[in-house]
Amino acid sequence: MRILSGIQPSGTIHIGNYFGMVKKMIESQNDGELFAFIASYHALTSVKSKEDLEKNSYEAAINFLALGMDPEKSTFWIQHDVKEVLELYWLLSNHTSMGLLERAHSYKDKTSRGISANHGLFSYPVLMAADILLFDSNIVPVGKDQIQHVEMTRDIATSFNHAYNEEVFVLPVAKVDENVATVSGTDGAKMSKSYNNTIDMFTSSKQRKKQVMSIVTDSKELNESKEWENCNIYAISKLFMNEDELANLRQRYATPGEGYGHFKLTLLEKIEEYFKPYEEKREYYLNHKQEVREILEFGASKARKIAQNKMEKIRDIIGLI
Amino acid sequence: MRILSGIQPSGTIHIGNYFGMVKKMIESQNDGELFAFIASYHALTSVKSKEDLEKNSYEAAINFLALGMDPEKSTFWIQHDVKEVLELYWLLSNHTSMGLLERAHSYKDKTSRGISANHGLFSYPVLMAADILLFDSNIVPVGKDQIQHVEMTRDIATSFNHAYNEEVFVLPVAKVDENVATVSGTDGAKMSKSYNNTIDMFTSSKQRKKQVMSIVTDSKELNESKEWENCNIYAISKLFMNEDELANLRQRYATPGEGYGHFKLTLLEKIEEYFKPYEEKREYYLNHKQEVREILEFGASKARKIAQNKMEKIRDIIGLI
Repeated sequence: MRILSGIQPSGTIHIGNYFGMVKKMIESQNDGELFAFIASYHALTSVKSKEDLEKNSYEAAINFLALGMDPEKSTFWIQHDVKEVLELYWLLSNHTSMGLLERAHSYKDKTSRGISANHGLFSYPVLMAADILLFDSNIVPVGKDQIQHVEMTRDIATSFNHAYNEEVFVLPVAKVDENVATVSGTDGAKMSKSYNNTIDMFTSSKQRKKQVMSIVTDSKELNESKEWENCNIYAISKLFMNEDELANLRQRYATPGEGYGHFKLTLLEKIEEYFKPYEEKREYYLNHKQEVREILEFGASKARKIAQNKMEKIRDIIGLI
Repeated sequence: MRILSGIQPSGTIHIGNYFGMVKKMIESQNDGELFAFIASYHALTSVKSKEDLEKNSYEAAINFLALGMDPEKSTFWIQHDVKEVLELYWLLSNHTSMGLLERAHSYKDKTSRGISANHGLFSYPVLMAADILLFDSNIVPVGKDQIQHVEMTRDIATSFNHAYNEEVFVLPVAKVDENVATVSGTDGAKMSKSYNNTIDMFTSSKQRKKQVMSIVTDSKELNESKEWENCNIYAISKLFMNEDELANLRQRYATPGEGYGHFKLTLLEKIEEYFKPYEEKREYYLNHKQEVREILEFGASKARKIAQNKMEKIRDIIGLI
């Protein structure tokens, strides 16, 4: 079973990204054959700065390697190292009706939020279809907002298979993990960079302390007993503590004498403990960028072999001499 | 000065294609550095049959070689041998506003004629822009219906140059030859495959005779004198006869005793004489398809070198690590 995951190179990641998506992706290396790529071509629909794209591409690669992406076990590359995907994108475009693309929610959402409508943004579901179909992917883990794109991929693949009367493409299945808890931010809303309520994963101790200390609570005093049920500190603590530790924390909430600041410091300690080994690995890769580039190239060479083989068959089927 | 021409692999060509476009393209090898490619990726917007695409691709290559395309002097390749064009197509897509594409006449025309709107058809001006910009083309000879696409290319190139604050692309100029006579078909309307009024260039003697003999005339008898001014036979004869021959033909129109059938046979003879050397060359290539493929690959290797060099610069400018 082949699992395909795309990674947006979008700079810093926060614990909401980690528990919402990254952790599952790393774990999926045990469930099947993981194909994971840094979506540099997709990023171009919005990133128009050389510095940002370069920085974010390396960040993404380094973060995933630090967090446990295993380049031997999985196939891990950066999208633009396997250019076959753009040939497939063009071929699929000729079997993608305009109506299908016009119905894409994410395009409509983005343009309605005033993001300028360029052709890359409009057609990116076709590129996503090429990403998926090029590797005969079976499973595409996605958030709910991306289910439609996997359905579009199935539609495009079906049209193509039908046009050439051959089972050229495997129809992929979207896997939506219903158990993924939405991670709350420091203000209790969904953690998101755009809400400015994140706790970043790889950041300075100072910055992380600042973020944790900014968690919003009610204004109970030291000498009052407190409620953990709707407390933002407790909600985030659940991600980092085991059941014993949580029981202990609940006990502390119930017992007057400590304030929210104390609970925050306990949480901060747990977060730091949790990410410490990853941070050390990350530090290593940050100081060995050339090695990171080589790891990506190694992944690309594995992906390219499959892609070229697939494209050779497709070119023959459609009559590109 | 670099001239870029795309050749649609659309099967048989007729004398309307030849005098309208092909002859000029062949001659342009003396005006500058001709880059001419068989537009196999573009063809996919409408051709969905392996057999047709393969046949038409070889036909186009063989016809142009037979008619004087010089693969040493010019750069002559088939589009899908230089895949860099699709990478550039994607990069340009992110600098192409949807409004620009929506205003394209040719897309509106095609869809209004009931051609099903697929994404390839919609976005083909972006691919055309990539064809042109990849090779720093200065001149793009086009028919009037294609002027807008060259203007779109300039717009896209300008946006891209502006976004990265660098003169990445050369702005091309459309060259419309106002002197190209519209070639009349056998019924006097513009010669076109869709009107079924063509005289084909490379066809059997029998078929060509049938086409020439079908030229529509008035019904004057042998013993009447005839008018050459609005005669379809005379109009086509002008393409194949020099001034002396035409004077002689006018004399025959004025003198009773011959019928239109005689004039048609004279024209037929001239057409056969005109194309004979080309037909022989064509016959050779038809029997040496492997050589044709190698000639295209030779051209692709020249084009690819330029394309790869250009793309390396562009990737660096936009930050693809």
